[in-house]
Amino acid sequence: MGLTALCPGTFDPVTNGHLDIVGRAAALFDGVLVGVLENPSKTPLFSIQERVALLQEAVAAHGNVRVTTFGGLLVDHAREQGAAVIVKGLRAVSDYEYEIQMAQMNQRLGGVETFFLSTSPKWSFLSSSLVKEVARLGGDVDGLVPEHVRKALIDRLGVG
Amino acid sequence: MGLTALCPGTFDPVTNGHLDIVGRAAALFDGVLVGVLENPSKTPLFSIQERVALLQEAVAAHGNVRVTTFGGLLVDHAREQGAAVIVKGLRAVSDYEYEIQMAQMNQRLGGVETFFLSTSPKWSFLSSSLVKEVARLGGDVDGLVPEHVRKALIDRLGVG
Amino acid sequence: MGLTALCPGTFDPVTNGHLDIVGRAAALFDGVLVGVLENPSKTPLFSIQERVALLQEAVAAHGNVRVTTFGGLLVDHAREQGAAVIVKGLRAVSDYEYEIQMAQMNQRLGGVETFFLSTSPKWSFLSSSLVKEVARLGGDVDGLVPEHVRKALIDRLGVG
Amino acid sequence: MGLTALCPGTFDPVTNGHLDIVGRAAALFDGVLVGVLENPSKTPLFSIQERVALLQEAVAAHGNVRVTTFGGLLVDHAREQGAAVIVKGLRAVSDYEYEIQMAQMNQRLGGVETFFLSTSPKWSFLSSSLVKEVARLGGDVDGLVPEHVRKALIDRLGVG
Amino acid sequence: MGLTALCPGTFDPVTNGHLDIVGRAAALFDGVLVGVLENPSKTPLFSIQERVALLQEAVAAHGNVRVTTFGGLLVDHAREQGAAVIVKGLRAVSDYEYEIQMAQMNQRLGGVETFFLSTSPKWSFLSSSLVKEVARLGGDVDGLVPEHVRKALIDRLGVG
Amino acid sequence: MGLTALCPGTFDPVTNGHLDIVGRAAALFDGVLVGVLENPSKTPLFSIQERVALLQEAVAAHGNVRVTTFGGLLVDHAREQGAAVIVKGLRAVSDYEYEIQMAQMNQRLGGVETFFLSTSPKWSFLSSSLVKEVARLGGDVDGLVPEHVRKALIDRLGVG
Repeated sequence: MGLTALCPGTFDPVTNGHLDIVGRAAALFDGVLVGVLENPSKTPLFSIQERVALLQEAVAAHGNVRVTTFGGLLVDHAREQGAAVIVKGLRAVSDYEYEIQMAQMNQRLGGVETFFLSTSPKWSFLSSSLVKEVARLGGDVDGLVPEHVRKALIDRLGVG
Repeated sequence: MGLTALCPGTFDPVTNGHLDIVGRAAALFDGVLVGVLENPSKTPLFSIQERVALLQEAVAAHGNVRVTTFGGLLVDHAREQGAAVIVKGLRAVSDYEYEIQMAQMNQRLGGVETFFLSTSPKWSFLSSSLVKEVARLGGDVDGLVPEHVRKALIDRLGVG
Repeated sequence: MGLTALCPGTFDPVTNGHLDIVGRAAALFDGVLVGVLENPSKTPLFSIQERVALLQEAVAAHGNVRVTTFGGLLVDHAREQGAAVIVKGLRAVSDYEYEIQMAQMNQRLGGVETFFLSTSPKWSFLSSSLVKEVARLGGDVDGLVPEHVRKALIDRLGVG
Repeated sequence: MGLTALCPGTFDPVTNGHLDIVGRAAALFDGVLVGVLENPSKTPLFSIQERVALLQEAVAAHGNVRVTTFGGLLVDHAREQGAAVIVKGLRAVSDYEYEIQMAQMNQRLGGVETFFLSTSPKWSFLSSSLVKEVARLGGDVDGLVPEHVRKALIDRLGVG
Repeated sequence: MGLTALCPGTFDPVTNGHLDIVGRAAALFDGVLVGVLENPSKTPLFSIQERVALLQEAVAAHGNVRVTTFGGLLVDHAREQGAAVIVKGLRAVSDYEYEIQMAQMNQRLGGVETFFLSTSPKWSFLSSSLVKEVARLGGDVDGLVPEHVRKALIDRLGVG
Repeated sequence: MGLTALCPGTFDPVTNGHLDIVGRAAALFDGVLVGVLENPSKTPLFSIQERVALLQEAVAAHGNVRVTTFGGLLVDHAREQGAAVIVKGLRAVSDYEYEIQMAQMNQRLGGVETFFLSTSPKWSFLSSSLVKEVARLGGDVDGLVPEHVRKALIDRLGVG
C-alpha cells in the first residue's frame, strides 16, 4: 500500500516555493494531492478555478500529483481523499508556531499526521502575498513563480 | 491584605485554555477578576453580554472569581478594581513578544505588574479563533470548551 | 563619496523609537532620507501630508536628514534617491523575520542592502499602533512621541 | 516499494517523547530505523550498548522498528540503510532552528529529506537531559520514560 | 495568609537585572526568598557563600526578602520553604523556551506555579555571564551591578 | 571622511557565509577590518595565526579589507582601529537574540553602533562548527568554504 500526501494551501497564486515542497513530496510519496482552500470570507486575487488551473499547469510534469479543492475541515478532506499525511513547508519561526498549532488541532480532530519540510533556503523569503505586492508595484517576479503564473499576474494586475 | 489579580481578554468565547489560567490564578490569589474587553472596532461572534454570561457560568465553581467588563485602558480598569497584578497565559513565542510589549507599556502607564503563566501543554494549540473556525466548519470542539459554550457555538453558527 | 541611507516606514505617526533610529543613522551616514510610504489600501490616522509635516518638524535639528514619500517599490525609491542602503530598526523576533524576508526580496529586486539597527531597549515596547491605541483610550503618551506629535494625536482623536 | 524512515538521536536515555515520534513514524512508514549516535567526544550516562538495549526493549512492540548505531555522517547512514527520509520531532523554536540548519546541510550532502513531526504537547517539556537532571536530584521520572528506563536511571545514579 | 515567592538562580554574581525582579516581587508578595543554586558540576566565579553574601547586602533594604541556598530539586526547596510560587524574569525568546520547559516540569513534579515577569527593557541585555566577560576584559560594569558587586568583581578578576 | 566597518568573529575557519558578509560590507564602506578574536579559554581547530592567514588569502581580492586580531573588548578594538561601526551577519532567531544583547552592551560600553546584515539564504545553514563537524566525519565541504580552507581542513583533520 502506498502513502498519499496532502499539500494544502490557498495558492493565490502558486509560487516556486510551493512547487519546491510539492516536488519533494512527489519524489517520496506514491501520490500527492494539492488541496486548494476555498475561503469564502477572503477575497483572493485569483478565483478558485483560476488557482486550480494555474496549479494544474505547474504540476503537470509530475505524474503522481493531483489538484483538489476543499472548503471544510482539512482533516475531513484528507480522510475523504485517502491521504494519510499532510505535508507543509516551513520557513520562519512564525510559520512554525502557527503550523504546529494547526498540526496539533488536526491530530486531535482526525488523527491525521502533519509532516513539515523545511523550505529550500532559496525560497525562504518567498510568499504569495509578497509576490502579489511586488507585481502590483511593477517589480519583476521572474524566477519567483512559473512563467505562466507571471503572465497571469501581469494580466490581472494590469502592470508589466 | 490580599492580592487581587486581573485576567483580561476578549473571551469570544472562553476556552478551556482560559479556564486553566483563571483556575490556577484563583488557587493562588485572594480574588480574581476576569475582565472582558469591549472593543467597538471588532465584531465578535458573541456580544459582550453573551461573553460575560458564558464566562460567569464557566467560573461559577470558583468562589473568589468575578467577571467584569472594560472598554478603556487595561491599567485604568486594574486600578479602579483594586487589582495589583495582571495575569496572562502564554503559549507561543509570538504571544510572548506581544504580551511583553503590552506588559512594558502597562507598567509605564500605570505601575501595574503583569505575571505570565505558561499555558498547560494540553491547551498549547488552543485559541478562541481556532475554536470558532473548527466549529464553523462542523468540527467537534468537545473537550476544548465547556459544554455550555459548545452548545452556544453550535447554536450561533447553525452547525452541529 | 558619501553614503546615503534610506529609513522607510508608514510613520502614522512618528514615535521616539523611529527618531532613535533616524538619529543614529544621521550620526553615521552623510545623508539620511526618511521615506514615508503612501499606501492607498490602508486608511492611516494622519494623511501622507500630515505624516510628512510631523516628521519634518521632528527631524529639523538634523542638518543631513530629508523627508521623502514613495508609493511604489522601496528599491526603486532607493535608487531614484541615490540611497545605497536601507536602514531599519529591529525590536522583536517577529519584526526580525518579516524584515529579513523583505531585505532578501529587496536585495533580489534591486541590489540594495538593508542594515538593521537594534532598537534601543528604552523603546523596545513602542510602535505607532500601540501609541494610537493608548492615546485613543485616553492614556498619556508623553515621552513616547515628540510633543508636537502628542498634540496632533490629542487633536485628531478628540481626547486628552 | 515501501518507505523506510530513520529517527536519529543520542537517546541517553530514550524518553516517552522519543517513543511518541517513533510510534507515529512506525504507523505511517513500512519500516523505521532508530539510529543511535555514537559520539566519542561526549561522555553519555549510558554506553552505546546500553542505550541500544534500552531502546530495543522500548520499541519491541513495533514489528517494523529496528535499532541501529552510527558514528559518521547521518546522510551516509541513511543511504547505507536504505532510508529515504529522516524523521525528527520538534518541540521549541530553538530545536526548530538547529534542526532546519541540519536538514538543509543533510539535503545538500546527500539528497536525504527530513520530515519534522511536532512533538505531542504532552511531551513538549521533556528531554533526556532534563530527565537525567531530575532523576539525579531524586525527583520522580515515572511517566516520563518507560518503566525499564526509570529503573536503569535509578540504578545508574544510585538514587531512588 | 500571605503568599511567599521564590526567586531562584545561580547569581554568579547578582546583577541589577536580578534585583529589578526581586524588588518587584517584594512589592507584591508578603515574603520573597532568593534561592541560590549550589551546582557542584559547575565552577562559579564566586563560591556559594560569597554569592549569598553579595545578595544579602544587595537586598538588605527589603524587609521581606531572605536569601536561601539549595542543591536539590527547586520544587522540593519551594515546598520546604513554604513558597507557593516561583518568580522568574524573562528576557529573550530563548530564555522563554527554557523557562517554560522548566515551569512545566516543575508543575508536574510538585504542583508549584511559576510566574514570569518581563525584565525591564533597561536590563534586557544584561546577564551574569556577560557582566563577568566584560569585567574580565577590563570593561566598566558600573551601573550594571551594585557597587559592592562591582568591587568584588574587580577584586576577584584582578582588573580595573 | 569615509566610514570603516569592523567584522568580528572567531573564524575557525572562515566560511563562504562570512565572506558573503565581508564582501557586501566592502562594497559599501571605505574600509573593512576583519577582526579575529583570540579567546584563550577555547581551543580552536586553527591557531590565531592560521585563522588570520586563511582569512587574508580569502579576502585578498578586496583592496579595502584588512585582517586584525584582538583579545580584549570589541568596542576597544573598534575605537583603536577607527572603526565607527560593527557589521555582523544574522541567520537564525537565536543568533539575533544573542547579537542584539551584545550590540546593546557594546553601545553602552563604547558608543559603537552595530549594523546587522541578513546572511544570504544560500548560506543560512552554514557555520564554522558545522563545517568542521562535516569535514571531521568525511563529508564534502566543497562550495561551503574557499578551496584553500577546504584543503587546510582536510590536512588538519587527516580526512578526505
